[in-house]
Amino acid sequence: MALPAPLHGVVPPLCTPLDPHGEVDTASLTRLVHHLLDGGVHGLFALGSTGEVAYLTDDQRAQVLDTVVRAAGGRVPVLAGVIDTTTPRVLAHATAAARLGADALVATAPFYTRTHPREIAAHFRRVRAAAGLPLFAYDIPVAVHTKLPAALVRELAEDGTLAGLKDSSGDEGGLRRLLVALGGRTGRRTGPAPGFSVLTGSELTVDAALLAGVDGVVPGLGNVDPAGYVRLHDAARAGDWAAAAAEQERLAALFAMVDVGPEAEMGRSSSALGAFKAALALRGVIAHGTTAVPQLPLDEAAVAEVGRMLDAAGLLPER
Amino acid sequence: MALPAPLHGVVPPLCTPLDPHGEVDTASLTRLVHHLLDGGVHGLFALGSTGEVAYLTDDQRAQVLDTVVRAAGGRVPVLAGVIDTTTPRVLAHATAAARLGADALVATAPFYTRTHPREIAAHFRRVRAAAGLPLFAYDIPVAVHTKLPAALVRELAEDGTLAGLKDSSGDEGGLRRLLVALGGRTGRRTGPAPGFSVLTGSELTVDAALLAGVDGVVPGLGNVDPAGYVRLHDAARAGDWAAAAAEQERLAALFAMVDVGPEAEMGRSSSALGAFKAALALRGVIAHGTTAVPQLPLDEAAVAEVGRMLDAAGLLPER
Amino acid sequence: MALPAPLHGVVPPLCTPLDPHGEVDTASLTRLVHHLLDGGVHGLFALGSTGEVAYLTDDQRAQVLDTVVRAAGGRVPVLAGVIDTTTPRVLAHATAAARLGADALVATAPFYTRTHPREIAAHFRRVRAAAGLPLFAYDIPVAVHTKLPAALVRELAEDGTLAGLKDSSGDEGGLRRLLVALGGRTGRRTGPAPGFSVLTGSELTVDAALLAGVDGVVPGLGNVDPAGYVRLHDAARAGDWAAAAAEQERLAALFAMVDVGPEAEMGRSSSALGAFKAALALRGVIAHGTTAVPQLPLDEAAVAEVGRMLDAAGLLPER
Amino acid sequence: MALPAPLHGVVPPLCTPLDPHGEVDTASLTRLVHHLLDGGVHGLFALGSTGEVAYLTDDQRAQVLDTVVRAAGGRVPVLAGVIDTTTPRVLAHATAAARLGADALVATAPFYTRTHPREIAAHFRRVRAAAGLPLFAYDIPVAVHTKLPAALVRELAEDGTLAGLKDSSGDEGGLRRLLVALGGRTGRRTGPAPGFSVLTGSELTVDAALLAGVDGVVPGLGNVDPAGYVRLHDAARAGDWAAAAAEQERLAALFAMVDVGPEAEMGRSSSALGAFKAALALRGVIAHGTTAVPQLPLDEAAVAEVGRMLDAAGLLPER
Repeated sequence: MALPAPLHGVVPPLCTPLDPHGEVDTASLTRLVHHLLDGGVHGLFALGSTGEVAYLTDDQRAQVLDTVVRAAGGRVPVLAGVIDTTTPRVLAHATAAARLGADALVATAPFYTRTHPREIAAHFRRVRAAAGLPLFAYDIPVAVHTKLPAALVRELAEDGTLAGLKDSSGDEGGLRRLLVALGGRTGRRTGPAPGFSVLTGSELTVDAALLAGVDGVVPGLGNVDPAGYVRLHDAARAGDWAAAAAEQERLAALFAMVDVGPEAEMGRSSSALGAFKAALALRGVIAHGTTAVPQLPLDEAAVAEVGRMLDAAGLLPER
Repeated sequence: MALPAPLHGVVPPLCTPLDPHGEVDTASLTRLVHHLLDGGVHGLFALGSTGEVAYLTDDQRAQVLDTVVRAAGGRVPVLAGVIDTTTPRVLAHATAAARLGADALVATAPFYTRTHPREIAAHFRRVRAAAGLPLFAYDIPVAVHTKLPAALVRELAEDGTLAGLKDSSGDEGGLRRLLVALGGRTGRRTGPAPGFSVLTGSELTVDAALLAGVDGVVPGLGNVDPAGYVRLHDAARAGDWAAAAAEQERLAALFAMVDVGPEAEMGRSSSALGAFKAALALRGVIAHGTTAVPQLPLDEAAVAEVGRMLDAAGLLPER
Repeated sequence: MALPAPLHGVVPPLCTPLDPHGEVDTASLTRLVHHLLDGGVHGLFALGSTGEVAYLTDDQRAQVLDTVVRAAGGRVPVLAGVIDTTTPRVLAHATAAARLGADALVATAPFYTRTHPREIAAHFRRVRAAAGLPLFAYDIPVAVHTKLPAALVRELAEDGTLAGLKDSSGDEGGLRRLLVALGGRTGRRTGPAPGFSVLTGSELTVDAALLAGVDGVVPGLGNVDPAGYVRLHDAARAGDWAAAAAEQERLAALFAMVDVGPEAEMGRSSSALGAFKAALALRGVIAHGTTAVPQLPLDEAAVAEVGRMLDAAGLLPER
Repeated sequence: MALPAPLHGVVPPLCTPLDPHGEVDTASLTRLVHHLLDGGVHGLFALGSTGEVAYLTDDQRAQVLDTVVRAAGGRVPVLAGVIDTTTPRVLAHATAAARLGADALVATAPFYTRTHPREIAAHFRRVRAAAGLPLFAYDIPVAVHTKLPAALVRELAEDGTLAGLKDSSGDEGGLRRLLVALGGRTGRRTGPAPGFSVLTGSELTVDAALLAGVDGVVPGLGNVDPAGYVRLHDAARAGDWAAAAAEQERLAALFAMVDVGPEAEMGRSSSALGAFKAALALRGVIAHGTTAVPQLPLDEAAVAEVGRMLDAAGLLPER
């Protein structure tokens, strides 16, 4: 399907349900897509960091994207992460994603290697040229250890290389400066990059980001409570900022689930992804809370704590 | 004067005007205080990072604080930075600040040395106990290279060690989680730390921070345009978030002055502080734009660029 | 071939020659292997960071390893890098490497994701168990942004998970502590991990590392001057430390070629790899100095500077 | 006394003994000086990081330096740390140090503020010009969060601003490149900065650094075992590198005392400094193992562990 320009709304980064052997659980993934569509989301982002893309083999990535595209059935656009170390490897993923029906691609700056802004620009330009699909830059320094320079994003937005930015940098001040440079709340559509979409990847500052003028949001916690993020988005679009902030507060409290895994014993990725998957399993959306190896699983006490948080948020069915 | 609990509103971190020899220009500093009070600010923060506290000798620090306290004349509270590497050195500054009439102190975690959360807690407790003044924690990882752990801030807020937090960490998501943990937008005053004041140090996300529930803002750019930040604050307090966001956009555009100094040739602190001081000189508030050694001065072209930005923002007098 | 335990000597991380289209130049790669064997090296490490492994597609990686194994012809062991983000993806590379005849594998800690020591341990244990080949841990924080904890390395050395460590961390003090903990210069072979091989990845401190007791060295610059590193190694083994230090000084001067690319215009990886490849082309070993996209190429002036450095080092043929 | 050019040999960074109230214990400090001179050291470095300079008030700093200068009695040169955030504050310390009889000063790059190489150069030039004493640059990124650029050190060495470098950066490869650029093992004295002294601050790679050509060493652990470092130095100077390495191994094992304090409960500075002081108290050199607030003290078990390490190293008197 044609991608809206700019892409906007709630576009969750889908978790990748796994069976106890670590294989992709396509039935659960299909249910997850339906759960998100039922929640009213405006797009789907498969194979992002929340989707454990860094843990999936190429075959598993294909299986995930194929499942999501089929389950989405053209109702909303599907963005596909093409996450790998450098251009040649990203291009291989991009080719596969185009073949499987993705509507747009999401790529990071090169990582593992020490890179340079001019090389990052060359990277995005080559991926855009070769793939034939709209391309989003994924700014996620916690993973790639480079912050995309604002001047670079603007250049690639204005020359049409990029269709948008998914900002998971946590640098809300820098995001604000970018939005202002692109025309601000009232001038974005007639500014230097009129169809360019700015999406925030933060779960915790969505109200603020919408107030600042972002087009949409890509919240990992949106897997668990898509309807909550859609309510937050709709309140903001309606100018009811107090309602948006109240919804954001509820979601910020729920987000505390990412810390149920003890910091001394497991990684922060494992704890957060384990919590999201445990919540999806407790809500009956997916069959297993399994995360990919070598991540350590949440223990029973942590899963029970996730359950209590869901219950407090009214997200568990009556029993 | 007694400090409001919580402290709230616009509390700019004052620049420290210097003469061409690097000595404190007390006449200019007095004019700066009047300029800020005329702008409607709710408090004054002397000897912060924006005040070049790291560049001032002990005698100069005393001169600055004495001047600000006298010029303020009790109309608004005066917070004094007591910035140094560890507890014994901070205590020496705290004693001086109390003697000179500060209404509250602002201290960072230990720096230069490698510290630990338990040692940071001991640090704040000792400073609070010895100084006899309300104490604000200053969370500024870009300077001290430690992020104050959220659990630590909560503990010290709840047990009364801290009167507040000045958050210059740039971690808006973490700030939101802290605010929610303290009771959120509607429950803060009846929460576990009812008089605790949360202030953001970011110039660029003030509308967002106020929407999230902070009590006040400590913007370096507020030296240049205090009335702008007061308008932003008042719009937010009135619930007019569109007006607040529009004012924030204007100030975000003005903030671009911090980059007038070429990155290849001078530090980011020098460029930002040089721009603020150049703007204050151009606006006629202070006599010289001099920054402390070994910072490099802005060149003429950069100062002219600051002038153009002020002019575009309507902040220069007609000539 | 059976891997010596411990693996020792000079084991260069091979550059991957590319043709102007970015495809693997297998004829040049074969010549590079012969060049290294002629220089007297004791092993070959294919698909490391110096081999641009992060830039090679899976097919290219297979092509490289196949070429190196054939060219080596069993004369020295071939180590294969299996560099990817996490366990499932590393396992796919490990299976391929085993099939293609690698004698040992080299894997990093997980990257892109935020990991944890317990997860890193699980990662190495799974790779070791699944691959059926001796496994070296590759400690390269500049790429993966995690430093392998010393206690973890010791645990995995002592329980047989790891056959060795390639230390590219630059933490020579930590390396010394590890060597001492494993028995020191005289007690390593009867210590808690008697066959464990410790290799340094630094080009610049090989004499020091050999004095401290490492078994071998993996120098990127060894592509350009393998005979120099073999002389350095042999002098150290003979106890002639003055000769070893003199040779190291000569190689340290030659290493300055990594900075021929201007820092303002290209990444440090591109400059270093570009210089090594330019040197190999100038020495007539490989056909082209091409580096993989999106790395920027050295300009003519930089290549000429590499030529002057080679000439000064007596590494160019008479003309 | 006139400083040798280059300064060379073992120059320990003195611990600062404190009484249980946190006041400087000058009697213990005098004994420490005698203990070091008896061990054969070639110079004394007061008020360094190991001396808890970041924890001492200005009065205490003066007390320390006065005590050390008197106790040294001109037998070896005394270097004084003038550690503070920026030039004006460093100059205040430099004036005091000159008055108290220091033979040379040791200063870091500016910290707390974000600085720039050109500003660091201006900083050292101003301190050198104003203080009238030989000046050493102290490269300690773990504390100041800036690595001194090699080109900057060379420039300031060659123009006479700096008398030497104390390298506590841990970047042994960079140190080697600097030494080679200054003329190498055989050409340093006739190179571009003939009297320039290069000292390593690492306890663990002293043999390697001497092999690479440094002039001297500034080991914190040298407080505890000065004679050991002097033996190591003498063996290296005699060209007996096997003996030097063996002595280094013994000292590396002893250095493990820095980890006796549990990482989960106290900072790494506190643990290391606590261990050095506990060892000095157990050896009968100083009266108390007290470290400055807010550092946490070692518990009894940790102190007992230090005792066992000393005993194993033959550093405790028979009882």
